[in-house]
Amino acid sequence: MVTQQRVWTGRSDRKRKRLEAASGLAQGRVVSAERIVELLEAVIGPGERVALEGNNQKQADFLARSLAAVDPIRVHELHMLISSISRSEHLDLFEKGIASRIDFSYAGPQSARVAALLADGTMAVGAIHTYLELYARMFVDLIPDVALVAADKADAAGNLYTGPNTEDTPAIVEATAFRSGVVIAQVNELVSEGRLPRVDIPGDWVDFVVAADRPCQIEPLFTRDPRKITDVHVLLAMMAIRGIYERHQVTSLNHGIGYDTAAIELLLPTYGEHLGLRGRVARNFVLNPHPTLIPAIESGWVDSIASFGGEVGMERYVAARPDIFAVGRDGSLRSNRMVAQAAGLYATDMFIGSTLQIDAVANSSTVTDGRLSGFGGAPNLGNDPHGRRHSTPAWLSTTWATGDLGIHRGRKLVVQIAESYGVGGRPKYVERLDAVAVGQKAGMPLAPVMIYGDDVTHVVSEEGVAYLYKARDLEERRQAVAALAGAGPLGQSSTAGQREALRRDGILATPEDLGVRRADARRSMLAARSIEDLVTWSDDLYDPPSRFRGW
Amino acid sequence: MVTQQRVWTGRSDRKRKRLEAASGLAQGRVVSAERIVELLEAVIGPGERVALEGNNQKQADFLARSLAAVDPIRVHELHMLISSISRSEHLDLFEKGIASRIDFSYAGPQSARVAALLADGTMAVGAIHTYLELYARMFVDLIPDVALVAADKADAAGNLYTGPNTEDTPAIVEATAFRSGVVIAQVNELVSEGRLPRVDIPGDWVDFVVAADRPCQIEPLFTRDPRKITDVHVLLAMMAIRGIYERHQVTSLNHGIGYDTAAIELLLPTYGEHLGLRGRVARNFVLNPHPTLIPAIESGWVDSIASFGGEVGMERYVAARPDIFAVGRDGSLRSNRMVAQAAGLYATDMFIGSTLQIDAVANSSTVTDGRLSGFGGAPNLGNDPHGRRHSTPAWLSTTWATGDLGIHRGRKLVVQIAESYGVGGRPKYVERLDAVAVGQKAGMPLAPVMIYGDDVTHVVSEEGVAYLYKARDLEERRQAVAALAGAGPLGQSSTAGQREALRRDGILATPEDLGVRRADARRSMLAARSIEDLVTWSDDLYDPPSRFRGW
Repeated sequence: MVTQQRVWTGRSDRKRKRLEAASGLAQGRVVSAERIVELLEAVIGPGERVALEGNNQKQADFLARSLAAVDPIRVHELHMLISSISRSEHLDLFEKGIASRIDFSYAGPQSARVAALLADGTMAVGAIHTYLELYARMFVDLIPDVALVAADKADAAGNLYTGPNTEDTPAIVEATAFRSGVVIAQVNELVSEGRLPRVDIPGDWVDFVVAADRPCQIEPLFTRDPRKITDVHVLLAMMAIRGIYERHQVTSLNHGIGYDTAAIELLLPTYGEHLGLRGRVARNFVLNPHPTLIPAIESGWVDSIASFGGEVGMERYVAARPDIFAVGRDGSLRSNRMVAQAAGLYATDMFIGSTLQIDAVANSSTVTDGRLSGFGGAPNLGNDPHGRRHSTPAWLSTTWATGDLGIHRGRKLVVQIAESYGVGGRPKYVERLDAVAVGQKAGMPLAPVMIYGDDVTHVVSEEGVAYLYKARDLEERRQAVAALAGAGPLGQSSTAGQREALRRDGILATPEDLGVRRADARRSMLAARSIEDLVTWSDDLYDPPSRFRGW
Repeated sequence: MVTQQRVWTGRSDRKRKRLEAASGLAQGRVVSAERIVELLEAVIGPGERVALEGNNQKQADFLARSLAAVDPIRVHELHMLISSISRSEHLDLFEKGIASRIDFSYAGPQSARVAALLADGTMAVGAIHTYLELYARMFVDLIPDVALVAADKADAAGNLYTGPNTEDTPAIVEATAFRSGVVIAQVNELVSEGRLPRVDIPGDWVDFVVAADRPCQIEPLFTRDPRKITDVHVLLAMMAIRGIYERHQVTSLNHGIGYDTAAIELLLPTYGEHLGLRGRVARNFVLNPHPTLIPAIESGWVDSIASFGGEVGMERYVAARPDIFAVGRDGSLRSNRMVAQAAGLYATDMFIGSTLQIDAVANSSTVTDGRLSGFGGAPNLGNDPHGRRHSTPAWLSTTWATGDLGIHRGRKLVVQIAESYGVGGRPKYVERLDAVAVGQKAGMPLAPVMIYGDDVTHVVSEEGVAYLYKARDLEERRQAVAALAGAGPLGQSSTAGQREALRRDGILATPEDLGVRRADARRSMLAARSIEDLVTWSDDLYDPPSRFRGW
């Protein structure tokens, strides 16, 4: 029996040496903003894996800027893990030679530059993930050596208070701290021990805290101005409420970020109330604190909301509605993206969201113009979880069987909303996704599809609702998608005879079939028609960011 | 705009009143064991939802006994959330009228009594879940009012140290603490502040701690004695290594708990080494610290292990191998079942495990004798996650397409190992699962299937390996399953001609096709043939529980 001679404490030995090297740069766990670049140079080695907190909303921007200021002779070829590439510093790291490889989930604001850095070889992409998948890999084969995170407050013992934007911090810190990685947190304020409003991360897991030169950036990504909701959005929303929420008795759900779903939120207290649906549908949500959900909450529709992150301006409102939101002892929101993504996967009956492009068999993608925008949470939220085992009326309403051996399965409702035409009059319904060509050009092994067609149960356009789960084969699915595609090329392949047959078989429902009168679909049905209306509904508890204040 | 008059602070008001009622029963957060029943009566109201930590391994047994001792006049009709129904007290609650409803994941040791209580109406089951699904619902529609959990140590501020068996505690506490629930932890020892080896749960999230009358029960569920591994297990394991690990280049994986997978673990340093596979397969594991993995770890096969829970006796070994396991500042294991289940879902290429019964199209279940044993983690680990977007060679090796629009998808390898005959000579391969009848009898809306056939990519029996993902239709899948079924009824439907065709098409591989000689499949190939051997391999760091000590 030959046992190899092997070092088993490489990670902890390295950490000890790094902390020794940094000992003169900190007072206990506290580092001054002036010494942070030196400290990063002391604790990060070439080629190491660095998880940098760039979330959907909260940004460890001070640490990102500081990392971009290290000496590339000392620190180089880092492998970055960034869930959302949101800031220019994230990419400066690559241009300066500090980092060379990245694994990420979303790159909305920086997607064009990502594509350029990829094309010229400055950046190598490991893979693009959905959020939960990226966190999962941080515990398996992408274990971070260093974590750079953001919180609101810390004490000298390293205890962190995140406030409402807890977001990715617990996942990143746990993945790093328990693998002898170095955890560094930027905070807006250092307070004395025992003065934190609450503890989100134990100081035991944190090596260094630094008061940033200015508060960390937080983006109001989930605020949708009701003024931008059109009559068409209202029509789509009415059909969704009648044809899906009511028909399938959907009680637990996740809403995407679009104006379509904002319209649904604002129709619940009006159209939904008229249909007698309060208490029967849309009770348990997994989503950020959407301001457009305020009227539904105030009208008694909502039992609970589990949040991925916070939303700027919703702090006082959330704190005043603790029966609905998860809040800490301090009264402010506790969000947790890893937990909420798991909740959205396994504990909701429906995902409903907009898409930018949908192909002839209902595969969809937001990659439409050569940008590598990534996935975010949609692939996790918008798939049928084959591991789910609890039943609800919605889950059982689309039961399917494979074979004849007594085995039946429920199914998650995965709903895509897409008007026939998008921005600039380009058809949203196409034969083949742009993502196929983009993926090939970027050398991706598989095309970057957001949601696969065989997971999609419903598609909604202004032509009606397609009940794709009832399609008996790929050809029938194709006909149902084409029936929604309007006047574009794909829509022209749809014949009146096909549409009649689809309606007869319950695979297609027009607005009329659903009892939705197009003439009724007016903005005036919205419970709030402006941000100001939302503030009024909130009893003045909602404080919209200035960019949304038009009055 | 009519806003309903509504109380928005029901949960926090209730908590404040409960804490007031309990104030005379505790000193700060510390409750004495003698007052715990009174305290439970003060903080738990009728009909409330109580999450009681009954894990796979760690049991909040003192709190379970104490809850079973409350006055049913005061506390009744509780809705229990227990991930694993492991102890008789869990069910005493129902017989005494203290609880009336349960949602759970696994009920192995108590499954017969669960079925009986269900049948006579003493207990109502909400649903049976996979672990991650149950935790997910605790954040959405099964939010706990009270959490009763177990840790190793606490200080007076409520900070908890779990030691290696962190397990479900973080998920349960987070779900409860941030919804104004009451969190009570039993601990083996109270220590003074600042003396905890590490902090697993911040005291901020905990309301009461109580030193239990005796240490909490922890079960060594993942210890498999190599003496019980048979030559047949070795044959199955050799075929799996050759026909799956090597062929698909599987680097990240989860192993089930059976002797088949224990055999695989013990063949890696011998047979696997002989095949030159070290460093090429089986590097990143998601599993508990299996003692049978020690020889592979010592031989340099394993890069990392992410653990659902701990394993009794493995404490010193794990602490001495921190490069492999997740450990805290104190050097002991940090496990986390919620995190590890997410990792097993999204960050592994393969799930491989034994099953007790498999039907003609490869649906499988461990429900075989009328017992409602539940699901545990298998449904989550053993399904194809449609939300995964990163690629690996294993993921790409079974690529499939729906339609011809340029969309291809990877697939998780889901492998079921089943000899043709099980305990008592009963065929494991059957036309229809017993679970179908059991589910009907118990009034379940869907049969309790562990893993669905269309997620299963491979089945292994002593007859060979079936590559089910290559089957073109249900009939071919059925033929491939029958070819593995040996001499039982299902096996008799398999013809020599079918088997030849399946082999030709690469859907079936016999041991000979894989280059595995049946005569070589001997126990002598195992790297360790006894628990004592494992201790030797571990450099005497592994301390097996006395029940496994035969020397």
